[in-house]
Amino acid sequence: MFDYFSKEKSDFLGKKDKSKKGCVDEGIKEIIIAINSKKGYYTTSSCAGRIVLLERLSGRKNESNWLFSSHNKIKFNEIKNHLKNQIKNEIWLKQEPLILHVRCSGLKSAKKLLDISRKIFRRAGIISLSEKKIVVEIIGSERIDAIIADKNFIADENYLKNLVKYTNRNFEENKRKSEKFLKIIRSNL
Amino acid sequence: MFDYFSKEKSDFLGKKDKSKKGCVDEGIKEIIIAINSKKGYYTTSSCAGRIVLLERLSGRKNESNWLFSSHNKIKFNEIKNHLKNQIKNEIWLKQEPLILHVRCSGLKSAKKLLDISRKIFRRAGIISLSEKKIVVEIIGSERIDAIIADKNFIADENYLKNLVKYTNRNFEENKRKSEKFLKIIRSNL
Repeated sequence: MFDYFSKEKSDFLGKKDKSKKGCVDEGIKEIIIAINSKKGYYTTSSCAGRIVLLERLSGRKNESNWLFSSHNKIKFNEIKNHLKNQIKNEIWLKQEPLILHVRCSGLKSAKKLLDISRKIFRRAGIISLSEKKIVVEIIGSERIDAIIADKNFIADENYLKNLVKYTNRNFEENKRKSEKFLKIIRSNL
Repeated sequence: MFDYFSKEKSDFLGKKDKSKKGCVDEGIKEIIIAINSKKGYYTTSSCAGRIVLLERLSGRKNESNWLFSSHNKIKFNEIKNHLKNQIKNEIWLKQEPLILHVRCSGLKSAKKLLDISRKIFRRAGIISLSEKKIVVEIIGSERIDAIIADKNFIADENYLKNLVKYTNRNFEENKRKSEKFLKIIRSNL
């Protein structure tokens, strides 16, 4: 029988990376390699976790611009620099955890990845379940979503310094859990 | 053939509510009724969305206490009152969206609920996929996770007032989407 999944997988992995700038990074490479080395799986999108300054434009469409995006811990001044000019819209500091989308060859392989992932990350689930496309989404737990400025206010330096401290702590915790996840993937998937 | 799922469903729904205090509320009742009125589904846990003050105890175990929990919009003074005494641990303000766990009778029913839910809530997925237990988790999008105090600092009043404003806005947005979700469940599930 022709192995459609393996054909799709090699086609997909042969394509150039189309991910949005700012979200391909070293931190998640080993996890991607480990998953793609297993027969019934391939990753379709990923982010190791990042720290972002988001400008949210008004209106219901939830449009937003990135002012800043980092795949490393951040410094207070990096944030401060973005608050110097006149502020017209809401600015949010977000620390986002690992996110991975993994295509699976069948229900059995999806269930296996799901069960392994949920040992470390509570936010793992099958988000697509059509016959031709089964996708597991894995999302880390640590996150921060804090408003830091809008046209009428800017958080003071003391607040921002503390927020940066906790943002960096969560970033490290996400990294620690991702390393644990890598070990489990390698040995159990 | 004996209908195990319907038996489980009536047993479960006949039991008393075991949910943790502070998370059974009017806002989600109609959604629960709508889902439970459909043959292949029953809800096992739910929260309409809430605003919480969380005291996070130190150490790696991620233990935490709730200082305050609301299923309505909040007032600045409600938060302020909790910051008057000596602060020993981290205090976080969290605005959490709707969360629902739904048991499904089979893969087909799970897929249907998943596809409907994902039209409104991006964080919907199958989190359990054993033969006897298929569960869809649905989580709203709006959230805030902001540090507001620890033993060394307290966010100033101006920051807190603005944070409360955005917390309430997100709370309303979660409510609006939940109403939209209810309509879709009623007509399409």
